[in-house]
Amino acid sequence: MDSAEFRRHGHELIDWIAGYLDDPGEYPVLAQVSPGEVRNRLPGEPPQQGESMADILADFHDVIMPGVTHWNHPRFFAYFPANNSGPSVLGELLSAGLGVNAMLWQTCPAATELEEVVMDWLRQLLGLPSSFKGVIQDTASTATLCALVCARERTTGGGVNRRGFAAGVDGGPLRIYASGECHSSIEKGARIAGFGSENLVRVGTSADFALDPDDLERLVEADVAAGMRPCAVVATVGTTSSTALDPLPAVAGIARRHGLWLHVDAALAGSAAILPEKQSIIAGAEEADSFVFNPHKWLFTNFDCSAFFTRRPDELESAMSIDPEYLKTDRDPEVTNFRDWGIQLGRRFRALKLWFVLRRYGAEGLREMLRSHIEMAGEFAEWVRRSDDFEMMAPAPLNTVCFRCTAGGGGEADLDRFNKTLLDAVNATGLIYITHTRLDGKYALRLSVGQIGTRRRHVEEAWKCLRETAARLAAA
Amino acid sequence: MDSAEFRRHGHELIDWIAGYLDDPGEYPVLAQVSPGEVRNRLPGEPPQQGESMADILADFHDVIMPGVTHWNHPRFFAYFPANNSGPSVLGELLSAGLGVNAMLWQTCPAATELEEVVMDWLRQLLGLPSSFKGVIQDTASTATLCALVCARERTTGGGVNRRGFAAGVDGGPLRIYASGECHSSIEKGARIAGFGSENLVRVGTSADFALDPDDLERLVEADVAAGMRPCAVVATVGTTSSTALDPLPAVAGIARRHGLWLHVDAALAGSAAILPEKQSIIAGAEEADSFVFNPHKWLFTNFDCSAFFTRRPDELESAMSIDPEYLKTDRDPEVTNFRDWGIQLGRRFRALKLWFVLRRYGAEGLREMLRSHIEMAGEFAEWVRRSDDFEMMAPAPLNTVCFRCTAGGGGEADLDRFNKTLLDAVNATGLIYITHTRLDGKYALRLSVGQIGTRRRHVEEAWKCLRETAARLAAA
Repeated sequence: MDSAEFRRHGHELIDWIAGYLDDPGEYPVLAQVSPGEVRNRLPGEPPQQGESMADILADFHDVIMPGVTHWNHPRFFAYFPANNSGPSVLGELLSAGLGVNAMLWQTCPAATELEEVVMDWLRQLLGLPSSFKGVIQDTASTATLCALVCARERTTGGGVNRRGFAAGVDGGPLRIYASGECHSSIEKGARIAGFGSENLVRVGTSADFALDPDDLERLVEADVAAGMRPCAVVATVGTTSSTALDPLPAVAGIARRHGLWLHVDAALAGSAAILPEKQSIIAGAEEADSFVFNPHKWLFTNFDCSAFFTRRPDELESAMSIDPEYLKTDRDPEVTNFRDWGIQLGRRFRALKLWFVLRRYGAEGLREMLRSHIEMAGEFAEWVRRSDDFEMMAPAPLNTVCFRCTAGGGGEADLDRFNKTLLDAVNATGLIYITHTRLDGKYALRLSVGQIGTRRRHVEEAWKCLRETAARLAAA
Repeated sequence: MDSAEFRRHGHELIDWIAGYLDDPGEYPVLAQVSPGEVRNRLPGEPPQQGESMADILADFHDVIMPGVTHWNHPRFFAYFPANNSGPSVLGELLSAGLGVNAMLWQTCPAATELEEVVMDWLRQLLGLPSSFKGVIQDTASTATLCALVCARERTTGGGVNRRGFAAGVDGGPLRIYASGECHSSIEKGARIAGFGSENLVRVGTSADFALDPDDLERLVEADVAAGMRPCAVVATVGTTSSTALDPLPAVAGIARRHGLWLHVDAALAGSAAILPEKQSIIAGAEEADSFVFNPHKWLFTNFDCSAFFTRRPDELESAMSIDPEYLKTDRDPEVTNFRDWGIQLGRRFRALKLWFVLRRYGAEGLREMLRSHIEMAGEFAEWVRRSDDFEMMAPAPLNTVCFRCTAGGGGEADLDRFNKTLLDAVNATGLIYITHTRLDGKYALRLSVGQIGTRRRHVEEAWKCLRETAARLAAA
């Protein structure tokens, strides 16, 4: 592909993306294809000869697009957002064009130093102390795994890294604590790092689905009494099911008294902490050993971009560093080599897109967009509260509302079934996309507001769709 | 940023990247900045108000570009390549524009199904049996970690995932085997997954730096006799230092006899296996449990794109799957959910760029570029062999040549010093960028050919630069 061809199709794609991001309204939010439908339209064997970019892009529009679920659609209310923005897409484009591997300072000094700078900007926006140092990871799953490995090595004095779990650990099993509402990545990390699912202790929650610190303290003390070794606690700010806010100051106190590594998982909600009026949701995080939130969720930076901070960079480097001859450079003593701050050796130049986003919008521009999302979710919650046929299933402190329809009547099992049917029915319209969870065992619908293009009318359309569909189903 | 602004700066960036990829010759290959030089030119605090994209891009050119090491420069010969191409950059752009999270089939059916298709195309190009199923990972580090976790769970019957290393493992420590030349990510994976560095057994190598299967068998038998539990063996096709080729059929036989999980790390060299005349380098891989190679290294697909294949998809899913309520969909029994095929939950739509590359060039187009790289490396090796002042340090079966200059004379320590000085001197010219390793304890220079724009004249320039610089240093 010569530069003329690159320009031609590059311009074509920029124009197409501009139009798409401006108004993806023509597409169903949730792809309406059946399993195999896309695959069956693609050749089973690779082409031997090159094809024209025009043919490939025609197939993209014809074959791929019908199978795309539109995460940046203004009526995407599912899961948590993975939002993007123009500046972020341009940053990713530039990063792909440069194609650097930012594993070492030397392999792209600007990538390392820009990452240090923009991560420190984020730290300031969150109000974390300057003792926290930041690194961009791909996902909170990976960041949490790093935190658990650090905790493991602290408790065992580096013993597991050196000698392995069986030989490197004296005494009973290492224990991790997190609320029953914590994200699945905590258990996954506990497995990968060799703790085992059984050593992730599920702490009870209060009525608002936040971790109960009294239960945490009881569980830690019981484990110590039983000869087990408390190692880490993961506090969640904004749980996946309902954005519940674990009480960080109380958890931090317990972590301090028992020598636990405190990791704060604020994957979604961390973005809200750049609002002065919401910064209190992470009060106590200054005592954490590590903290993660995802600008790729709710800070307009396209996936992937997970911001991992630690007050213990030496412990992180010591847990993650391997120093083969072929990676050594003369600069090593005086620079940051981010290869030693995570799982992967190779690293993209992700700081570029984050820099574009932070500068193009400025802190105030970002805050304005976050406030509008929180306000829209608040309005939706108010409509639910005032409705005779819907009810709230959890507090909605941020951008996510958990609710259900009661129009179908009956007992809990009937309500579960009715709301599952309602979910499928509204998603099948293609007009909106919402997802579900279970809270206290009860089936709950979730509506999460976080797209750059979402306006009040889109949330009103969601509410109308839900009410009309529920009425139709209840009458059937 | 409205769509007009996105279009304007998008077009500007496409034009700039087109020019940059066409001729990055004006830039020094290795960034010539000092530590802190980029950072010191950036504000210490985040902007409160938004700035214009024009200002941001001006700073990109002025502040960031001088600190970029140019991985896609035709005279980049360092490490292994992380090459890209026009189609791949366009694919990454489109993926960023769509901004989907391909964690589940439902969250973007086309992303999952296109990934299944293009990974099967790659499998066919490599000549692996259809029992191998593929998934795109970010890096070989992550893929290898997945393989080690699978091995661990197979040997312990799922015991570590469930109960943790200490309680879930009966008998002695679990052992991993790999040659002393294996990549640092094997040890890193062994640490993260809780085996510990001491349980990564370094197998001896033959004169050509390939794993010695007799030594492997001896070590496994000695461990069994000592009450330890052999678990996995990692064979490398194309070691990082010198692209040595471990003898897969012999290793596979030992793995079979002793029930080891066989993981093949072909991160760089796997790409060469799409050449019929080089496919023999992975003969034996059909018996592997897992296999990884990186299209982001040497198959013109911009970082990150690591192709991980396994003959044991059920074991991979069983090791990696966590199934919380909020991620369940009705489609789960009939579709692939790639969240259960790796460490991370969230996933980019990386299949798009791989699809663009495979179709735009076709298998023949890719083969032609790979052959030209191997041929240029072969010519360079021939120049070294014929030179009175340089010598080969290892066989060069593919695109990478390990050599040193003997013009400085003296003993081994003198040669080490002289070649280190030579490395620094040629890299300081900005004309070329090469790196080093140690082979048999001796300092060796490495020249690896793998950029899309590299032509014979660029390799000649490297050779000229090396000879002239060496002569100058020897005379000094």
